[in-house]
Amino acid sequence: MKPSFKTVSSSITAPQGFFAAGVFCDIKRLGTGKGSNKGKKRDLALIVSETPATVAGMFTTSQVCAAPVKLCAEQIKKGVAQAVVVNSGNANACTGAQGLRDAKAMAQLVADQLQISAAKVFVASTGRIGVPMPMPNVKRGILAVSQLLNQSEENAQQVAEAIMTSDTKPKQIAVEFKLGGATVRIGGICKGAGMIQPGMSATGARPAALPGLHATMLGFITTDAAIDQKMLQASLREAVAQSFNRITVDGDMSTNDTVLVLANGLAGNSKLKTQNSDLKTFQSALNHVCLELAKMIVRDGEGVSRFVTVRVTGAKTQVDADRAVRAVGNSALVKTSWHGGDPNWGRILGALGYSSAKVVEEKIDVAYSEPGSKKLLFSLKRGQPTKTSFAALCKVAAQKEFDLHINLNIGSGSAILYAADLTEDYVDFNKGDVTDPTTLGG
Amino acid sequence: MKPSFKTVSSSITAPQGFFAAGVFCDIKRLGTGKGSNKGKKRDLALIVSETPATVAGMFTTSQVCAAPVKLCAEQIKKGVAQAVVVNSGNANACTGAQGLRDAKAMAQLVADQLQISAAKVFVASTGRIGVPMPMPNVKRGILAVSQLLNQSEENAQQVAEAIMTSDTKPKQIAVEFKLGGATVRIGGICKGAGMIQPGMSATGARPAALPGLHATMLGFITTDAAIDQKMLQASLREAVAQSFNRITVDGDMSTNDTVLVLANGLAGNSKLKTQNSDLKTFQSALNHVCLELAKMIVRDGEGVSRFVTVRVTGAKTQVDADRAVRAVGNSALVKTSWHGGDPNWGRILGALGYSSAKVVEEKIDVAYSEPGSKKLLFSLKRGQPTKTSFAALCKVAAQKEFDLHINLNIGSGSAILYAADLTEDYVDFNKGDVTDPTTLGG
Repeated sequence: MKPSFKTVSSSITAPQGFFAAGVFCDIKRLGTGKGSNKGKKRDLALIVSETPATVAGMFTTSQVCAAPVKLCAEQIKKGVAQAVVVNSGNANACTGAQGLRDAKAMAQLVADQLQISAAKVFVASTGRIGVPMPMPNVKRGILAVSQLLNQSEENAQQVAEAIMTSDTKPKQIAVEFKLGGATVRIGGICKGAGMIQPGMSATGARPAALPGLHATMLGFITTDAAIDQKMLQASLREAVAQSFNRITVDGDMSTNDTVLVLANGLAGNSKLKTQNSDLKTFQSALNHVCLELAKMIVRDGEGVSRFVTVRVTGAKTQVDADRAVRAVGNSALVKTSWHGGDPNWGRILGALGYSSAKVVEEKIDVAYSEPGSKKLLFSLKRGQPTKTSFAALCKVAAQKEFDLHINLNIGSGSAILYAADLTEDYVDFNKGDVTDPTTLGG
Repeated sequence: MKPSFKTVSSSITAPQGFFAAGVFCDIKRLGTGKGSNKGKKRDLALIVSETPATVAGMFTTSQVCAAPVKLCAEQIKKGVAQAVVVNSGNANACTGAQGLRDAKAMAQLVADQLQISAAKVFVASTGRIGVPMPMPNVKRGILAVSQLLNQSEENAQQVAEAIMTSDTKPKQIAVEFKLGGATVRIGGICKGAGMIQPGMSATGARPAALPGLHATMLGFITTDAAIDQKMLQASLREAVAQSFNRITVDGDMSTNDTVLVLANGLAGNSKLKTQNSDLKTFQSALNHVCLELAKMIVRDGEGVSRFVTVRVTGAKTQVDADRAVRAVGNSALVKTSWHGGDPNWGRILGALGYSSAKVVEEKIDVAYSEPGSKKLLFSLKRGQPTKTSFAALCKVAAQKEFDLHINLNIGSGSAILYAADLTEDYVDFNKGDVTDPTTLGG
């Protein structure tokens, strides 16, 4: 089936009426006398809608959740947003009452600059945990960025850069489609890299299929579609369930995971408020935007050298399928074997065996394929090694991206996980350097 | 309190009436023409009691469990053992019906040599998964090792070596104590290194406090105490719950985890069959043997550079304490920070937040200390960073071994986990080399 949307250039400023900019205001307080450009990456960004927009959000289900997440979760109840201020370099997590005051002050500073209500300003942060926000720097940044807002691709890119932490590249996408006679666009940016296994929900209640999960990932999506708030929240929930909540880099869920979507209605479509074909088209485009962004996070995860799509089918239940796919995708031994290009099925069976999903060794099939290919190379059928040559399996497992297919053959539950290998570079990056605390992760 | 036992030399041959030996029979079938000593490490061992012994065991709760585990779980119902044959190099896991026939054939080969019943011969294996046992080599090994049995320290050491896989050193201990007038000894050996987070039970039912866990660890304990089988099983369960089931190297539970204890009664104590002070003395000695062996596994874990004892107190329940301590001890981000000597509390709070234990950020205390010391250096009190200097915390976190204390301050549940850092060496070792399949792990 041909997708009902096309990709267009830019990202969050592609839909009508969205303005953006990003600046450097030294949130890590590295100073400027170091002679290196290390700390000069933009670290504060602002996204603004010309008119108040309908907003939906999904947030970390961690019990230790950052001040900006608490603020967003409160504000989203009114369903209206006009601006999002985001910083990297400091997560404003584990910062107590002062942290919440600082997050609110950030919203107020933006509100003052834009002359709107602070209740319409959403805040997101990512970076080191447990360090108070450097408010003088933040204020300088907000004053500066408020003067630079425009709708250019360049400015959208500035925001995509400003939210990066250990990401090596900005992550952006935009699509365009028709709803009735109107031309609608959805644009999105995100960041990830480490602490990546989101388990977000709208309410703080952990999704049933995520028994106990674990990143900072931030995603910001803009659209000029006109859509009812409840519909937008339901659409985002479905899109996130199939994308950001289906990825893992290191199995650690963050205190700050946040996805926000702002819909300002300027495309002029007739407002989406019932289950109809227009809503389906919108959903399909939103799903695509979220999934592409989510995959970019895994591919650019800390130290990642291989991207593996793990598909579990034939599980007793959907929940079991999810447990099985996460046991495999988060096993240190499976992930190191991927790094080595080793089509090891013993470790996969090991992980399935200790998962809390029901498995029967004698029924398990394991196969490898090129990404998206239906041509499966079976290494194990019904628990028994096949005659497939080790060299043929190695050829697939040596590629930068491949698919791993696991059929438990005991039911109809299925699940997918976009996963990554575990490399020396991941360890080296995350061990940091205590003599240079700026290298220490959140 | 002074312990009621003393350490003596040797291990499994320290108690009366136990004989042992280990040989090399090339179970990995590396051949002998390679000019290297790589494959020449002993890989098959036999432990024999002069008289039939009472036996107790704890086994992996993985649903994918190796043929020898299935055989032991069956045989242990009769409660009597006289010999244990163990090999490294091949796990005999995921080997189907042939695997079980091979495990039984190993028992029969030993039985024939010793002229005892095969039902009294227990089998354990560790090594690569999914490869048929090389039975001609195994047979040659069993014939050879049966001729070499004796009670020397040297032979006990041969067994400790023969069961090693990626272990860098043999792991052995023996203690001596008085029961009534009799002098009793307990000796033990074990192996570990990778796939280490045992969750063993006597019945295959997963311990309640282990919601979904994960090594190949093998442990063999001998004693000349006279003890009732049910009492021995209960004692082993308690000892394992406080030792082997409280360690993690990489969070992966093995298909082969096995601990066996054989008690041949030759010490001549009056048989332990009720809860009395003699049983307490025995229990305390068995606990000590198991805990010391378990810690040796963590210290010699694959790539391990630091040993961290994580203590959680103040949890809502015991189960919550276990969930919290395992979330911290298995977090990739926490483990890499340990590797870097970084006393990072942000990642610890992050892991607690996504754990399935109830936590309240504003109540959490985090402290560091020297191993076993009561002098705690708090980095976090009631969710707030303390004034303790970063340098002082770094000094503790830079040591090869330290204790991490987490008080959740919301209940009386407590748990301990003996954990390790995650290093580049772990990744490098486990990625293996597909051009040399002998380097690929199980």
